[in-house]
Amino acid sequence: MSGDNMERGGVKPLFVKIPGSDLPTQIETRFKVTVVGVGNVGMACAQTCLTEDLVDELALVDIQADKLRGEMLDLQHAAAFLPRVKIVADTDYAISAGSDICIVTAGARQREGESRPSLLGRNLTLFKSIIPQLVHYSPNAILLIVSNPVDILTYVSWKLSGFPPNRVIGTGTNLDSSRLRFLIADKFDVNAHNVHGYMVGEHGDSSVPLWSTLTLANVPVLNVRDKNGVSYSKESLQELHRTVVESAYEVIKLKGYTSWAIGYSTASLVKSLLRDQRRIYPVSVRAKGFYGIENEVYLSLPSQLGRAGVLGVANVKMGEEEMQKLQQSAKTIWKLQSELEF
Amino acid sequence: MSGDNMERGGVKPLFVKIPGSDLPTQIETRFKVTVVGVGNVGMACAQTCLTEDLVDELALVDIQADKLRGEMLDLQHAAAFLPRVKIVADTDYAISAGSDICIVTAGARQREGESRPSLLGRNLTLFKSIIPQLVHYSPNAILLIVSNPVDILTYVSWKLSGFPPNRVIGTGTNLDSSRLRFLIADKFDVNAHNVHGYMVGEHGDSSVPLWSTLTLANVPVLNVRDKNGVSYSKESLQELHRTVVESAYEVIKLKGYTSWAIGYSTASLVKSLLRDQRRIYPVSVRAKGFYGIENEVYLSLPSQLGRAGVLGVANVKMGEEEMQKLQQSAKTIWKLQSELEF
Amino acid sequence: MSGDNMERGGVKPLFVKIPGSDLPTQIETRFKVTVVGVGNVGMACAQTCLTEDLVDELALVDIQADKLRGEMLDLQHAAAFLPRVKIVADTDYAISAGSDICIVTAGARQREGESRPSLLGRNLTLFKSIIPQLVHYSPNAILLIVSNPVDILTYVSWKLSGFPPNRVIGTGTNLDSSRLRFLIADKFDVNAHNVHGYMVGEHGDSSVPLWSTLTLANVPVLNVRDKNGVSYSKESLQELHRTVVESAYEVIKLKGYTSWAIGYSTASLVKSLLRDQRRIYPVSVRAKGFYGIENEVYLSLPSQLGRAGVLGVANVKMGEEEMQKLQQSAKTIWKLQSELEF
Amino acid sequence: MSGDNMERGGVKPLFVKIPGSDLPTQIETRFKVTVVGVGNVGMACAQTCLTEDLVDELALVDIQADKLRGEMLDLQHAAAFLPRVKIVADTDYAISAGSDICIVTAGARQREGESRPSLLGRNLTLFKSIIPQLVHYSPNAILLIVSNPVDILTYVSWKLSGFPPNRVIGTGTNLDSSRLRFLIADKFDVNAHNVHGYMVGEHGDSSVPLWSTLTLANVPVLNVRDKNGVSYSKESLQELHRTVVESAYEVIKLKGYTSWAIGYSTASLVKSLLRDQRRIYPVSVRAKGFYGIENEVYLSLPSQLGRAGVLGVANVKMGEEEMQKLQQSAKTIWKLQSELEF
Repeated sequence: MSGDNMERGGVKPLFVKIPGSDLPTQIETRFKVTVVGVGNVGMACAQTCLTEDLVDELALVDIQADKLRGEMLDLQHAAAFLPRVKIVADTDYAISAGSDICIVTAGARQREGESRPSLLGRNLTLFKSIIPQLVHYSPNAILLIVSNPVDILTYVSWKLSGFPPNRVIGTGTNLDSSRLRFLIADKFDVNAHNVHGYMVGEHGDSSVPLWSTLTLANVPVLNVRDKNGVSYSKESLQELHRTVVESAYEVIKLKGYTSWAIGYSTASLVKSLLRDQRRIYPVSVRAKGFYGIENEVYLSLPSQLGRAGVLGVANVKMGEEEMQKLQQSAKTIWKLQSELEF
Repeated sequence: MSGDNMERGGVKPLFVKIPGSDLPTQIETRFKVTVVGVGNVGMACAQTCLTEDLVDELALVDIQADKLRGEMLDLQHAAAFLPRVKIVADTDYAISAGSDICIVTAGARQREGESRPSLLGRNLTLFKSIIPQLVHYSPNAILLIVSNPVDILTYVSWKLSGFPPNRVIGTGTNLDSSRLRFLIADKFDVNAHNVHGYMVGEHGDSSVPLWSTLTLANVPVLNVRDKNGVSYSKESLQELHRTVVESAYEVIKLKGYTSWAIGYSTASLVKSLLRDQRRIYPVSVRAKGFYGIENEVYLSLPSQLGRAGVLGVANVKMGEEEMQKLQQSAKTIWKLQSELEF
Repeated sequence: MSGDNMERGGVKPLFVKIPGSDLPTQIETRFKVTVVGVGNVGMACAQTCLTEDLVDELALVDIQADKLRGEMLDLQHAAAFLPRVKIVADTDYAISAGSDICIVTAGARQREGESRPSLLGRNLTLFKSIIPQLVHYSPNAILLIVSNPVDILTYVSWKLSGFPPNRVIGTGTNLDSSRLRFLIADKFDVNAHNVHGYMVGEHGDSSVPLWSTLTLANVPVLNVRDKNGVSYSKESLQELHRTVVESAYEVIKLKGYTSWAIGYSTASLVKSLLRDQRRIYPVSVRAKGFYGIENEVYLSLPSQLGRAGVLGVANVKMGEEEMQKLQQSAKTIWKLQSELEF
Repeated sequence: MSGDNMERGGVKPLFVKIPGSDLPTQIETRFKVTVVGVGNVGMACAQTCLTEDLVDELALVDIQADKLRGEMLDLQHAAAFLPRVKIVADTDYAISAGSDICIVTAGARQREGESRPSLLGRNLTLFKSIIPQLVHYSPNAILLIVSNPVDILTYVSWKLSGFPPNRVIGTGTNLDSSRLRFLIADKFDVNAHNVHGYMVGEHGDSSVPLWSTLTLANVPVLNVRDKNGVSYSKESLQELHRTVVESAYEVIKLKGYTSWAIGYSTASLVKSLLRDQRRIYPVSVRAKGFYGIENEVYLSLPSQLGRAGVLGVANVKMGEEEMQKLQQSAKTIWKLQSELEF
């Protein structure tokens, strides 16, 4: 080879810059997502985002340096099977700098039979060490909270961050809604994407399914019989709701934790946020003033998610009973929150 | 509504068959994959196949009924975020009937510091209970073995199955090769998809990197300097090999097991097999007669994978020293295998 | 190299079969789709199916041998950018043998201002030369008709094929519905995937939008104001309908034909059919007996599509006026059909 | 409904902002791509980028207002089948403002038998009206030139733009290389992704295949026999080269133009550029100083593409004869260019 640019004596560099190039020393990353907490939930979120090609840079943060490095290496080793993504990890939050979204999954894992609220005490202190750091390094990020009890911890994150409420979101009942849609789809032998309906309110026991708007192929579920000829009454739907609520506990009892479904749920939110998809998801948002909720709480409501976070809350039809349940959840949560010391 | 077909009095069915339809009672599933073993590796394989939309039916089999059901539910709950896939699970292998591919990940997990061969004793008995069942229910399936020590267990599976060798494959050094490609890509700041090279032989300590054919952008790695100006000698490449071998142990030491990368590696093989992609992967195949290997063993060689399994072994350039190492591995493995009682 | 299997004197084969392999001489193709007609519509269907990785073998059939070969080569030349797919083309229908789906796009192109029914005469003779050939070579295929006037030509295809009605489908108002959903989504600045509603009936001028079931985020469109504060009355919705109907003519007038949207629409149906997605689409099906339709016609109704074709027609809520329009369309179409000579 | 935020008397808005939200009036688009020229090539590029979900905003520019609007509408109508993308079109370049990449496909179509250089005269004037406008509205964009003769028009674009050379790229021999890889893959019945090799130099007749580095599964093609037992000599490879060169003309002769393959080729470059994939492609870059090229020309060389455009040119092995051909092409092109008046 004889090109002037290419020869530098001895072994050559693999690449040679074109003369006159204006290459920045630091390439701006387009989609950077940080996952705080590399337990089963955090890693399911991180890995699903990778497989779905949503991120250009993935940062992992945890206090367990060993586990953290192990997870980073395990993802990096898949480089030959994935699009190129920069994967970094550190116990120092500096690694999260410039994130578009920070997903917080850190927290004590829900124990078998443990109520979500009971997790609260163990998690508040933790969040005081996490949120200010994320805010410091990514002042324009969207905070996406997964840790439980998710509604209170999202409120906590909002308060600790000083962010406008459109940039602090909890995964909330997005997963509960998917569970409900799966159950209905299974009974009717139809694709879950054709089941439209939301569970709102508190993630968990007191979640509120909006039965009146639940449709299959735009047909209200109360009007039709399923594949086995069963038709649904208000009572049988309440039974379905119980199944949904219990299924979270059931999975925890059976395998010790939940991970895959929450990972997919979170990745779907990340996609709508990063790519400005403006899709509607039931996620935990600042709920005061909506549907008669008077307390300063976070609860899941059907919300439109785009590049700027929560673009708005949808005006869905809600029965009096459903609103009352929401308002009751708000009061209960508010009471718990009042005892927190920031 | 007044259509004759639609009215059946009272609440209506959601769907009504078109008169004259000829609907089969049983829909033939196109792509059915069974995963045996729902530990971290098995679930990473299963979930990656789901996310990448490779399967129409996924069957999970394990002896731990609770864990098994928990994992099935956790995947099913993501229905709203995925294409429709039938996900089933049972301790009874009947659930695996009619699979196109059976992925075997069952086995004792490699302990920190444990050599892969030392796992053998614990896994042979297990395979005697697995393989004949898979063969019984899916006589035309391809067996894809992931459990370690993968080369011997793939040989064991071949013998136990009575299948022709093109339908018994071990994931082998496909993952080791990805690790090597990641390392090289990282040093040159290039996409790992532009690093072409194979590690062959035994999965693990005695794997054989084919340095002479390792190229970046079709440039032999020995000819170029990396992003830091470092050029590579035979010695520094051996150092790289050590890093690759140790990285498996390192991940196990750090996080207790490896999962994500082997999941992606396996899914890439599943894609090439199911969709007849005819791509070439270094995987564990019946190696006798290739490259001077005289023993009846399974070792990783660059192999073309398609709908019929291993379509052929590639005639890659191999140095004398590399072939000797392969032949040595073959002898060692053969000796270990000779002591097995079928 | 010294392996017995590898050496055959002189230049070596690239691949060598493993001894004992049982490789079939003919690999069974999993997903074979034939596209009849390689005009703009046919090629948009074919290329979108390729990009979305839906098929393993794509067969193109047309009477123009030159154009046909040109299109085949142009797709084949993209091999380095796509998964491996077998792409074949011939003027002889033997090339279509064993297809899972046959997409028929052949037909005179709709001229500017030409009504869809007026195309009929030019297309009937053509279909007599196409359908029996497809049936001969792929007796178990699903026929997916795209050519216009689609409802009558799908009926014609059903009669000519002798297939059960679940295996003869027209793309119908699936595209009209997407156009409506785009318009609504645009007015509300929301993702079209959150607009749920169907246009049914005849593809084109007399299509019937089911306004009462049209929802955004499960909120009836008649209840809400859009991003500009506009609220919708029955009249303004009829205006929207007119826009949808005219937009087909508008595109034809502006660019001479429509192609991309019908290509995406068709690919979405292909996915649901091939992968048994059991999603609901408004497509042209044998409509007699549904919603008071008394004539033997094909019209679009919300239908569940899976591996066996049309699994059922959905029992959606329909107003008296909407049903009357459907029944009127049925009569008009029936009259036109009565004059056809088979 | 009784929430204060939700009630505004009469018909409600679909969405209500959360109090305290800080929503920007203008959402920053992440990935904006402009396509200049909505002929067959431009639309194949645009539509493939859409299907592959590469862009958040797509702007189309052309001088034919009707055709332009028709193409825009046709893409928009597919909203229900695609992720949400903003699709805009105008004859005014203001619509392209803030693009990350501007793809230029405008130009007279290559006529049957017309040499690429002969197109030059018809295209230079056109580019004087295009490039300065693109530069004005997107001063930080990467210009990706597709129009033929691509090497000279990329040079012209570089001169007209005043951009550093890393941000002015021609699609060059990326497509020729794919054609070669398809031919080889077909002969060996292997996936084209396992054929590694580059055609460099001028796009078209005088392109230079780098035979010595052409490998299948890392095996030099000169060492092996294909599926029919044929082995390749230097002469038979030259025959292959002729087939590649002629296949462009053949497709033009058969269907009137080429579109699909160049669309896929361009989309692959767009992906590597937008998502910083740092993959290596043979594309047209400022070639002076490389491989003994002394003239100020653009020619295709294996180049690494990332967020900043061309990151570098790869130091591939090139024979004396190959370099001489490159240098000869450079001289020929330079002579043609010298006659251009800027």
